[in-house]
Amino acid sequence: MKFAILPKPWTQTVTELEAEGHEHVSLEGNPDVLIYHGGAADFPEEIPESVQFAQFAWAGIDALDEAGILKRSGLRWANAAGLYDDNVAESTLALILGALHQYRRVTRDGSTTREIAHETQYLVEDKTVAIVGAGGIGKKLLSFLVPFGVYTIAVNRSGRPVEGADETVRMAEIESKNVWGRADVVVLLAPLTESTRGMVNADVLAQMKQTAVLVNVARGPLVVTDDLVEALNNGTIAGAALDVTDPEPLPADHPLWDCERCLMTPHTASTPRFGKQRIGGLTLRNWEALQRGEALRTEVDVEQGY
Amino acid sequence: MKFAILPKPWTQTVTELEAEGHEHVSLEGNPDVLIYHGGAADFPEEIPESVQFAQFAWAGIDALDEAGILKRSGLRWANAAGLYDDNVAESTLALILGALHQYRRVTRDGSTTREIAHETQYLVEDKTVAIVGAGGIGKKLLSFLVPFGVYTIAVNRSGRPVEGADETVRMAEIESKNVWGRADVVVLLAPLTESTRGMVNADVLAQMKQTAVLVNVARGPLVVTDDLVEALNNGTIAGAALDVTDPEPLPADHPLWDCERCLMTPHTASTPRFGKQRIGGLTLRNWEALQRGEALRTEVDVEQGY
Repeated sequence: MKFAILPKPWTQTVTELEAEGHEHVSLEGNPDVLIYHGGAADFPEEIPESVQFAQFAWAGIDALDEAGILKRSGLRWANAAGLYDDNVAESTLALILGALHQYRRVTRDGSTTREIAHETQYLVEDKTVAIVGAGGIGKKLLSFLVPFGVYTIAVNRSGRPVEGADETVRMAEIESKNVWGRADVVVLLAPLTESTRGMVNADVLAQMKQTAVLVNVARGPLVVTDDLVEALNNGTIAGAALDVTDPEPLPADHPLWDCERCLMTPHTASTPRFGKQRIGGLTLRNWEALQRGEALRTEVDVEQGY
Repeated sequence: MKFAILPKPWTQTVTELEAEGHEHVSLEGNPDVLIYHGGAADFPEEIPESVQFAQFAWAGIDALDEAGILKRSGLRWANAAGLYDDNVAESTLALILGALHQYRRVTRDGSTTREIAHETQYLVEDKTVAIVGAGGIGKKLLSFLVPFGVYTIAVNRSGRPVEGADETVRMAEIESKNVWGRADVVVLLAPLTESTRGMVNADVLAQMKQTAVLVNVARGPLVVTDDLVEALNNGTIAGAALDVTDPEPLPADHPLWDCERCLMTPHTASTPRFGKQRIGGLTLRNWEALQRGEALRTEVDVEQGY
């Protein structure tokens, strides 16, 4: 297999694939596979006909889709679904705990100590956790949650029971099954599509418990940011933890930064280190599947955009 | 059973014990049991002879011991060992993750985003976690760590194997077995005694990995604070998360507050809510053991002070 890596080669990935007998070439060298880890702006205009598929290095390909690159490229695309399930699930649990345990409310002068002590909530208190968009990361998160004895509601499109969840709800029934109102922790892990954009708005926030926390590790625009700011400042919900925001990055003067009930990380739930370590192996698995005449393991539906 | 609760009655506990047929009295009413949830300063001078044991509402009784109250009182004492294992273990996991995931380094202007992305460490990366003082909280923490696939070293006084740990090390062998040097995460859960005071000093910090993090959920004076500040500022270790500090509360101008690699919570790993919910049941279990001529379930060794 001849492979190119754009926008710039990852040494670790090149070394790994070369050790397996594959050849690193530039785009002009007629690669069989293009590994791409950049944004929409850096994607090349012309792709040689030799490229049998493009392997995107990350799970969420919505930015390339929105820029029209998926369709325009005429390529088959694979994403990195599943490749970062373990570390993103770990980041998600960390944010859940950081929100429940009020990390952003700690002050130097101790003025909030009493409130923190009284308002800290614990998963071990028989909490209900709803995972909206329960795919691979969600399943891993469910495994992390087992020892806490929480009740878990998995929400997915099909409603097909998610292993390890106490209950699975079809996305279309999320309101009729009162998922928003029953959860102590709402975790967003859904892809960004036209049907999920803005799904958490003022109406949904009003359905949530006053003691509930919202955790978003998926895409910022799943949440209507202004509505969330209002809900946090009014005490409509108890807290939030966000690895992603809309807009992103969040401007330094954005009101979310002033909100002591909002814990934030700057889209660091995963890290480039894992991309470099893991994308070579996935690219090979996809390449080998293609050679056997099978579908790519993580093929993107270019029409649907994910 | 006649019981008193000092320094002031907890309604929830009174209601629970009265529902079981027990009688709430003042100290002058000759209680059989004194439930105490305060500090050294509030402990009464005179205890009626009717009191068969004092039930302390928290696990760590070192402050009463240091003030000489345990011995002076002439009482048998029970503490609340085990009563808050689940929620304190949850707080401990939260602090481990918050330290590894660099929560204190997040800035409004995004200046640290790249560093956070590159320096965030994950338990799922085959980390080694050492639990120094692995009793009930440590065992619960071990159960929370199972899904992450970490290697665990339990350190206790006896060296008797701790269930669920990959390895158990006697406290006396902590250096010869290179526990400090092997751990990616060092968790302090030991009681404060004359032999544990200051156990984490500059020498120990220098033995730790540069990428390691220190988590203290036990007692502040286990750590020499000045040495920790220096280790964090010099990059001797990668981070810390502290629910307890020395001094405590930490003054607003203390250099630890300026340390972006130090996550802190203000001694809120547990919460008074759990005391009120749970101390009644423990008091009864201890009372019933006494009636059967058995030892108190959580009796304190007044000579040893824990």
